[in-house]
Amino acid sequence: MGVVVPLEDKSKNTASVKPLVELTKSDMGMVNQLILAKAGSDVEMIPEVANHLISSGGKRLRPMLTLAAANMFGYRGDGHVKLATSVEFMHTATLLHDDVVDESDLRRGKSTARMIWGNQASVLVGDFLLGQAFKMMVEVGSIDALDVLSNAASIIAEGEVLQLSVAKNMETTEDDYLAVIRAKTAALFSAAAEVGPIIAGATKADRDALRSYGTNLGLAFQLVDDVLDYGGSAQDLGKNVGDDFREGKITLPVVLSYRRGNDEARTFWRSAIENGNNDDAALDKALSLIAQSNALTDTIARAEHYGAIARDALAPMADTPAKSALLEVIDFCISRVN
Amino acid sequence: MGVVVPLEDKSKNTASVKPLVELTKSDMGMVNQLILAKAGSDVEMIPEVANHLISSGGKRLRPMLTLAAANMFGYRGDGHVKLATSVEFMHTATLLHDDVVDESDLRRGKSTARMIWGNQASVLVGDFLLGQAFKMMVEVGSIDALDVLSNAASIIAEGEVLQLSVAKNMETTEDDYLAVIRAKTAALFSAAAEVGPIIAGATKADRDALRSYGTNLGLAFQLVDDVLDYGGSAQDLGKNVGDDFREGKITLPVVLSYRRGNDEARTFWRSAIENGNNDDAALDKALSLIAQSNALTDTIARAEHYGAIARDALAPMADTPAKSALLEVIDFCISRVN
Repeated sequence: MGVVVPLEDKSKNTASVKPLVELTKSDMGMVNQLILAKAGSDVEMIPEVANHLISSGGKRLRPMLTLAAANMFGYRGDGHVKLATSVEFMHTATLLHDDVVDESDLRRGKSTARMIWGNQASVLVGDFLLGQAFKMMVEVGSIDALDVLSNAASIIAEGEVLQLSVAKNMETTEDDYLAVIRAKTAALFSAAAEVGPIIAGATKADRDALRSYGTNLGLAFQLVDDVLDYGGSAQDLGKNVGDDFREGKITLPVVLSYRRGNDEARTFWRSAIENGNNDDAALDKALSLIAQSNALTDTIARAEHYGAIARDALAPMADTPAKSALLEVIDFCISRVN
Repeated sequence: MGVVVPLEDKSKNTASVKPLVELTKSDMGMVNQLILAKAGSDVEMIPEVANHLISSGGKRLRPMLTLAAANMFGYRGDGHVKLATSVEFMHTATLLHDDVVDESDLRRGKSTARMIWGNQASVLVGDFLLGQAFKMMVEVGSIDALDVLSNAASIIAEGEVLQLSVAKNMETTEDDYLAVIRAKTAALFSAAAEVGPIIAGATKADRDALRSYGTNLGLAFQLVDDVLDYGGSAQDLGKNVGDDFREGKITLPVVLSYRRGNDEARTFWRSAIENGNNDDAALDKALSLIAQSNALTDTIARAEHYGAIARDALAPMADTPAKSALLEVIDFCISRVN
């Protein structure tokens, strides 16, 4: 017997980020200008390094969440643009630091900043962007927003350290892995969504709802991202099948495939992830073990679960274009694998 | 479109706690003797109050988890009996204190201890049982087991306080509610399972796996318990449909039904839960709103998700009667609503 988890059927396969893009279009214009302005510096290397990553075609989903969440509660002002820019800078700083920690050569199909300017520049420009992010938050002057975003910054850093401890450890449980992505990915989605109602002066219940929406959307987003690395049509996202595998990253498809595998499969995974035996033949083997163990299907089912929680978090809100755009983003994130 | 979450089909409808009961039968005989011995005291009221609840027909699922988890890793000794008894005492102490905090009249179809002996006796006998639990743990002499169980005790207490803050607050999100049951219910399941491998001297990976199993089993167990309160054939468990409702408890079916409801439904829920308008007519209305909103179906789907994580936590373990009994308990817990 199985349980059918009902989804918002038709909307799903055609779910798009477009309504969110449309809704936030003029605000995002200001965010993009602010990004360029605040990544500027008389120290020439700073804008070079920063713009390399900033201009590399990320979706800027996180700042759009902040803008839409502020819009949802009728915010009229310009603080949301600074907060949204801060959120994107926090994200960019994390990516710069991540690439150093993971020793990554490529991101979104381009050489990473560290390959061009070195590790030191990547670390320091990341720090500079974090500093700029905090300055903008302070300018906005909302202590509650500062509290939420600075808390997220510290949780993200904690998550990075936690990730070091699970890195290349095939005994990582699903709970361990969830703790990592809860900190590394979901915390920023959560803060990005929560500062919207905060700056709009919404109620505590509204803040709680948007925080829960952001957290669970972030979890679903990351799990789908994990799936894309082992299949799906990810080319358009600048990600190649097998990137995570070649970097020896622990992700949920790997955790499930390892745990469900027989002795031979587990020996393979340890050799690939823990000892770096990850050539093309190994990737083929990994893909076949993942398919055998239903690890992708079940990772998607897990993502659906978090998506459902995000949806219920927003359920009580009045029907507005912002609400409907934010709901569609849940389906969009998950539909990337369908 | 929906996603079919596959379950261990046939096993499910016939899933039973019996293999676990059989596996732990002789050890549970010793646990039951120890429970009687350690609930004894020259202070006459102590065994009276303690035995009132102890003899009221709980399933003693938690101590069986400890015994089976120790068995799974080949433990040969008698420390597991003391740890299992400690776990049951921690559970009993929590129930005694809960009934005081919730002002409950009935538990498992009988008058609560506080209705017979008063609140003070219930609080103090709970404290006595906690003290006895700690004494037994210390006798076993495993610092790691002490660490895990004392940590659980403190998390459970924290969860009780957290629950006060969400009590009768209809704006509680699913994440808030999950944080409560993670602390109040799942933490003890988790510790009960983890001390098995600890006392058996198993690896860190085995400890991590059993902790994850216990946590997610506990979450699934509690969510199904929440469902039973609004339906299912719960009479055999000494629980009556509507007990949670009449006590104004926030549980997931209520959270989902409220969030998904229209203005009229939300007004009803606030009146029922926040203002105590919970007579039989209100219960009928609540049941109908819960049905309309698919809140029970979706609470069960959420429970299935945690059950699936628990199952994957145990996946790498060798096939033993203990493993298969522990896996069947997941299906048993969920099948209570089918």
